[in-house]
Amino acid sequence: MTTAINKQWKLKSRPIGEPTRENWDFTESEIPSVQKGQMLVKVLYVSLDPAMRGWLNDAKSYIEPVQIGDVMRAGTVAQVIDSKLDGFSKGDFVVGYSGVQQYALSDGKGVHKVDPNLAPLSYFLGVLGMPGMTGYFGLLKSGEPKEGETVVVSGAAGAVGGLVGQIAKIKGCRVVGIAGGKEKCQFLIDELGFDAAIDYKNENVKKALKETCPKGVDVFFDNVGGEILDDVLTRINFKARIVICGAISQYNNTTPVKGPSNYLSLLVNRARMEGIVVFDNVKEYPIAMKEIGGWIQAGKMKVKEHIVEDIETFPETLMMLFKGENFGKLILKVGEAE
Amino acid sequence: MTTAINKQWKLKSRPIGEPTRENWDFTESEIPSVQKGQMLVKVLYVSLDPAMRGWLNDAKSYIEPVQIGDVMRAGTVAQVIDSKLDGFSKGDFVVGYSGVQQYALSDGKGVHKVDPNLAPLSYFLGVLGMPGMTGYFGLLKSGEPKEGETVVVSGAAGAVGGLVGQIAKIKGCRVVGIAGGKEKCQFLIDELGFDAAIDYKNENVKKALKETCPKGVDVFFDNVGGEILDDVLTRINFKARIVICGAISQYNNTTPVKGPSNYLSLLVNRARMEGIVVFDNVKEYPIAMKEIGGWIQAGKMKVKEHIVEDIETFPETLMMLFKGENFGKLILKVGEAE
Repeated sequence: MTTAINKQWKLKSRPIGEPTRENWDFTESEIPSVQKGQMLVKVLYVSLDPAMRGWLNDAKSYIEPVQIGDVMRAGTVAQVIDSKLDGFSKGDFVVGYSGVQQYALSDGKGVHKVDPNLAPLSYFLGVLGMPGMTGYFGLLKSGEPKEGETVVVSGAAGAVGGLVGQIAKIKGCRVVGIAGGKEKCQFLIDELGFDAAIDYKNENVKKALKETCPKGVDVFFDNVGGEILDDVLTRINFKARIVICGAISQYNNTTPVKGPSNYLSLLVNRARMEGIVVFDNVKEYPIAMKEIGGWIQAGKMKVKEHIVEDIETFPETLMMLFKGENFGKLILKVGEAE
Repeated sequence: MTTAINKQWKLKSRPIGEPTRENWDFTESEIPSVQKGQMLVKVLYVSLDPAMRGWLNDAKSYIEPVQIGDVMRAGTVAQVIDSKLDGFSKGDFVVGYSGVQQYALSDGKGVHKVDPNLAPLSYFLGVLGMPGMTGYFGLLKSGEPKEGETVVVSGAAGAVGGLVGQIAKIKGCRVVGIAGGKEKCQFLIDELGFDAAIDYKNENVKKALKETCPKGVDVFFDNVGGEILDDVLTRINFKARIVICGAISQYNNTTPVKGPSNYLSLLVNRARMEGIVVFDNVKEYPIAMKEIGGWIQAGKMKVKEHIVEDIETFPETLMMLFKGENFGKLILKVGEAE
């Protein structure tokens, strides 16, 4: 071991609005010893995802809130450094929810091994992890894109959005991404092969949608909510499908969430709006991972990561998501493989 | 003929907010003479429906707006009094869109004959007409109620709502209606067989939903929108279906429509919200009419009508819908069969 202590980020208080350093405790504790039926893992990469903001609220949701005093929940790639658990050996690489800390004990539940030769380890938190599964099943099962249709995706330069747009291209759709800033928009077109991109920070989204979606919008995959959702609702086609994956623009609100004023466009267009949560498809993850892996190997899918080093930066690095400062899948690197 | 003139209500100006008498012209004109390929009908009953408010706005919708100077569009039951059109004879009863007037010429398009022995003529504007078709297909196709599920319907004492609740009961669901006033709520339980009713004018809807839907809400058929939609969103179950049929609470807004702040409950619960428009099912109307007719004859479905006489009252009678003053299907009676 390179260190005898375990640095951990724990939830100190529930944030009102944006979470700040004040809402967290950065603690050091001894690395626990392994009992029978347990393994000790060293965390290498921590996934930072918009959904984490929701886990901080004391509200009924699809998953229990993180409790005050708990290590912050987070998806992780880790390496087994000691095991008294059948099926896991020292040196194995595993994905799971070890949280924002350097070391963790595990009984193996919700943890599975990954092959470091298949893909860079960090990919198991992105395209081959929760964001990848979210985009894959959300687009294909709920969005149901058909060849020749127009698919719009918000948060398009993020982990889920970039994947969704690329899958829609593979399915033969016209793809328009909404992202913040010229650099991201250029990337969507030049690198990911989107047909068009809308810079919501510098363009009138409603007007830009009219220009970039001359045949209207058949599928909208929404990660952002707020004004962007309302703008897209004015452009949807008959029988359009709106996939509600997230609403990152609303997660730090101290006022009520902005509901979509234009929701009656669903009525006019006999359209539907459906919410998705990745965990519902857990049995089919292997199918998705195989297909996405194939697309990556065939050069049909590009992966953009935004890796920040040093566990100490966690509070500020997390906030990059809500400020639109990450460019690709945001990951906190907290350790090196041994 | 009992009169030599034709009284007509024409749109004078587009209302901002609630339509008032100032927005209409009440005119008298000569009854036109019938040319070859036409028939003249005498209007007996005019259907008054919430959707009519939308037709007054100069906005893209599922149907063209009524133009300034036009006779107000409305569904009607009428009697043929002169015909130079194949397939229609003097004395026939017909349903169509003859508008808010006493007499109308027709080329037969969108008009079909009805049998006065099958049901009272006014029923063809209600349970056997557009509201009936709306409720039947909206509930069954988009709501997909399953036996044992909980179905909530807003505007429950209205033309569509009362039918939807009764169909849901026939399908074996627990049915809770939301309506305004004790009398309507008592009617829903005592006459229509609902399991419970919520008086939104005198009760806290959110609290009442908790009490009357202990197992949560599986299907919500919404005619009202606004706060009621938001309240129900807090109680929906996993994979719930919300059918957006209308939003009568919002139709006269001078401020933007209130979007559902709690729409992220769709995400948490993997639920869907879908808009419906009755015209999409036109080929299947005969199936629905036969089944609804059977339920009425078997005593499984009760019909409540609110018939107001005198065409002169049209502007105020229409407003009863938006004030929640009608109790059952609202109909304006403008003439007697000959």
